[in-house]
Amino acid sequence: MSKKLKIGLFGFGVVGQGLHDIIKGQDLNIEVIKIAIKNPEKKRNLDKKLFTTDHQELLDHPDINTIVELIDDADAAYAIVKKALISGKNVVSANKKMIALHLAELVALQKKYGTSLLYEGSVCGSIPIIRNLEEYYDNELLHGISGIFNGSSNYILSKIFNEGMSYDLALKQVQDLGFAESDPILDVGGYDAKYKLAIATAHAYGLFINPDHILNIGIQNLSESDVKYAKEKNFKIKLVPTARKISTQQVITYVLPKFVRSDDFIYNVENEYNCVTVQAAFADKQFFFGKGAGGHPTGAAVLSDIAALRYGYKYEYKKYQQQNGLVHTDNVNLEVYLRYEHEYTVEKLKIENIRERFSNKDYKYVIGNVSLKSLLENRELLQNKDVFIAHTGKITYTAQQILGAKNNLLSIATLEN
Amino acid sequence: MSKKLKIGLFGFGVVGQGLHDIIKGQDLNIEVIKIAIKNPEKKRNLDKKLFTTDHQELLDHPDINTIVELIDDADAAYAIVKKALISGKNVVSANKKMIALHLAELVALQKKYGTSLLYEGSVCGSIPIIRNLEEYYDNELLHGISGIFNGSSNYILSKIFNEGMSYDLALKQVQDLGFAESDPILDVGGYDAKYKLAIATAHAYGLFINPDHILNIGIQNLSESDVKYAKEKNFKIKLVPTARKISTQQVITYVLPKFVRSDDFIYNVENEYNCVTVQAAFADKQFFFGKGAGGHPTGAAVLSDIAALRYGYKYEYKKYQQQNGLVHTDNVNLEVYLRYEHEYTVEKLKIENIRERFSNKDYKYVIGNVSLKSLLENRELLQNKDVFIAHTGKITYTAQQILGAKNNLLSIATLEN
Repeated sequence: MSKKLKIGLFGFGVVGQGLHDIIKGQDLNIEVIKIAIKNPEKKRNLDKKLFTTDHQELLDHPDINTIVELIDDADAAYAIVKKALISGKNVVSANKKMIALHLAELVALQKKYGTSLLYEGSVCGSIPIIRNLEEYYDNELLHGISGIFNGSSNYILSKIFNEGMSYDLALKQVQDLGFAESDPILDVGGYDAKYKLAIATAHAYGLFINPDHILNIGIQNLSESDVKYAKEKNFKIKLVPTARKISTQQVITYVLPKFVRSDDFIYNVENEYNCVTVQAAFADKQFFFGKGAGGHPTGAAVLSDIAALRYGYKYEYKKYQQQNGLVHTDNVNLEVYLRYEHEYTVEKLKIENIRERFSNKDYKYVIGNVSLKSLLENRELLQNKDVFIAHTGKITYTAQQILGAKNNLLSIATLEN
Repeated sequence: MSKKLKIGLFGFGVVGQGLHDIIKGQDLNIEVIKIAIKNPEKKRNLDKKLFTTDHQELLDHPDINTIVELIDDADAAYAIVKKALISGKNVVSANKKMIALHLAELVALQKKYGTSLLYEGSVCGSIPIIRNLEEYYDNELLHGISGIFNGSSNYILSKIFNEGMSYDLALKQVQDLGFAESDPILDVGGYDAKYKLAIATAHAYGLFINPDHILNIGIQNLSESDVKYAKEKNFKIKLVPTARKISTQQVITYVLPKFVRSDDFIYNVENEYNCVTVQAAFADKQFFFGKGAGGHPTGAAVLSDIAALRYGYKYEYKKYQQQNGLVHTDNVNLEVYLRYEHEYTVEKLKIENIRERFSNKDYKYVIGNVSLKSLLENRELLQNKDVFIAHTGKITYTAQQILGAKNNLLSIATLEN
């Protein structure tokens, strides 16, 4: 009925071993033929003959029809996936950076060589978001997606907000637990979340956006004053990537810390868990929650891709292929909380409509509107330790955008959320 | 690449029209050839030639390769689906009662005739739970599933708890909104939730349970005293279907009102929304939330099944086929809140370990343990207006069950939730 998959596995780290744990003992019509590893000295529980350090051995192996790529290095992963797709092998990958950076080319290769590349495990681990975006929602009817895409930064925020832990101690703890990137700025600076957002946006709207064009502001500058402010208002701060349609033709994307209220599902998403909220015209609001990081949750997502390959599943990239005329824009105003030291920062960012202002000798903030364009232009300024910025959740649209949204089945209430 | 689907559609009610709304304007390689309806007099927006009242015309039509069955009548639906599968046509259905009652036969027919029957829309509307249970979780590693499966009863509970509305008025409102079953007891009595639970349990554990053997206690006897009690403890009451593995070999299932705490995701699931919580060893906890009732959410799920048929997707029923030795049992004790009038009720149900007891002339309750077996044996007694029962969430296991659970990668903490 379904095709027997003979797998060449690249990488036997936490996800590769997680995958192996899950496959073990299940009757799945799947066989791991060979595993490519970096360090042949490391002690492993499996038969030595399964392992090799020669990548080409897997790619040339006549029995292997499926490559599962689970290595950290995005460049090496790119080379492997490209060769595999060209040589007629289907591929499963969980490498979000590699996929976000090379998606257009990888789609072209799949088309040209009739092969399939699946990567559910690359975005939010165990949450089946790519498949859902691909199959459920027409881009016209999808108002927006957002969520918590990075478990490490969310873990840090949970410890700070629920246990009063310091940022530094929380960061150390997440590193000790082993689910942080080796360079912490990739997690806490919102880069990891940004790559995942780029992939999700490709399947949501058919827009392949260069990750460099997506704003990512992280939580690395969060101070005790910011936490105190949020707690007094009964907010939590979460790091939230967002893609949102703001008119019939325009999509905005950003990764920003956000004040979250207690009646929002995101509020209760703690520690290394991830979630995705989808708003759409027909399915209305959907919310997916699950473990985002770690070998087993990601392994489960990888396994579901492997299972799908058995019956020849491919992403169709329908929204991308049909040239829907959507464009990525920065032409929108976000309401933000901005903590700063020098008035210069407020002026440089062109904060407008300031509706709240506080200042004493240790702590200054404003709440007002800023354009996404200005934030992107001043990314470096926002890296300064004396600046922290968080989205209040409000977006201000131009009259034209509101009109466009109305024509597009969106209600203003939806826009304002 | 993917096969063109030529559809014969049975039923053009709220889901059928919802499906049609969604398909319209999308480039999906799908064509609706003919629609079978009951009443030819009703005014419709589509070309008259599309409609027929003759079922056989669709089943015999040489161009139609896919049947989409969206009618209310479970018996008629069964006849249609059976004939379609036998005649080599793939089928999508959203009829939970029909599927729950005939699953074993429908699986055998699919196998014998090489056809595929998909029914994501039958359980929790827009939430992709069947596909996830089918593809993600090995039954050994799945601790339990629960959630809110019936939008109408949840809507009533939301109105009672959040707006202080009376039960009767809330029921009337949900009927006016058009997403209630014609006989309200199917919703508020937990029957609808039970059919959905039976289907979910089939895909979770490979157990095809006769719905008659699943306890369903509803919310129809909920009184103001019960609501007041729950509110004082900061609980909400939700109607929660549950399937849970309690040892390596045993699965329990029931639909019961449940006291839910504010840190549980279910707490914030309001009105006609549905949710599913899945606990598993590798993926850990997952939570899915979305609209359960209504034409568009269910239509979206039906469309995703149709999309899956284009690339030949079938449920494999692996857990069922592999004869995993799991059995359905009632041999477990649940901690419950029982409001009653006559002491006879407490005795008859054999409530044990009573840890809280209250009684005045208008209101009597106990909190204690009761066996699932006893609840099943006394179903009729529990229908009496003077009795209301709700699960506190606690389950008491035998020492043997706890040992079995431990061997099965379950922690006691998991069991106690």
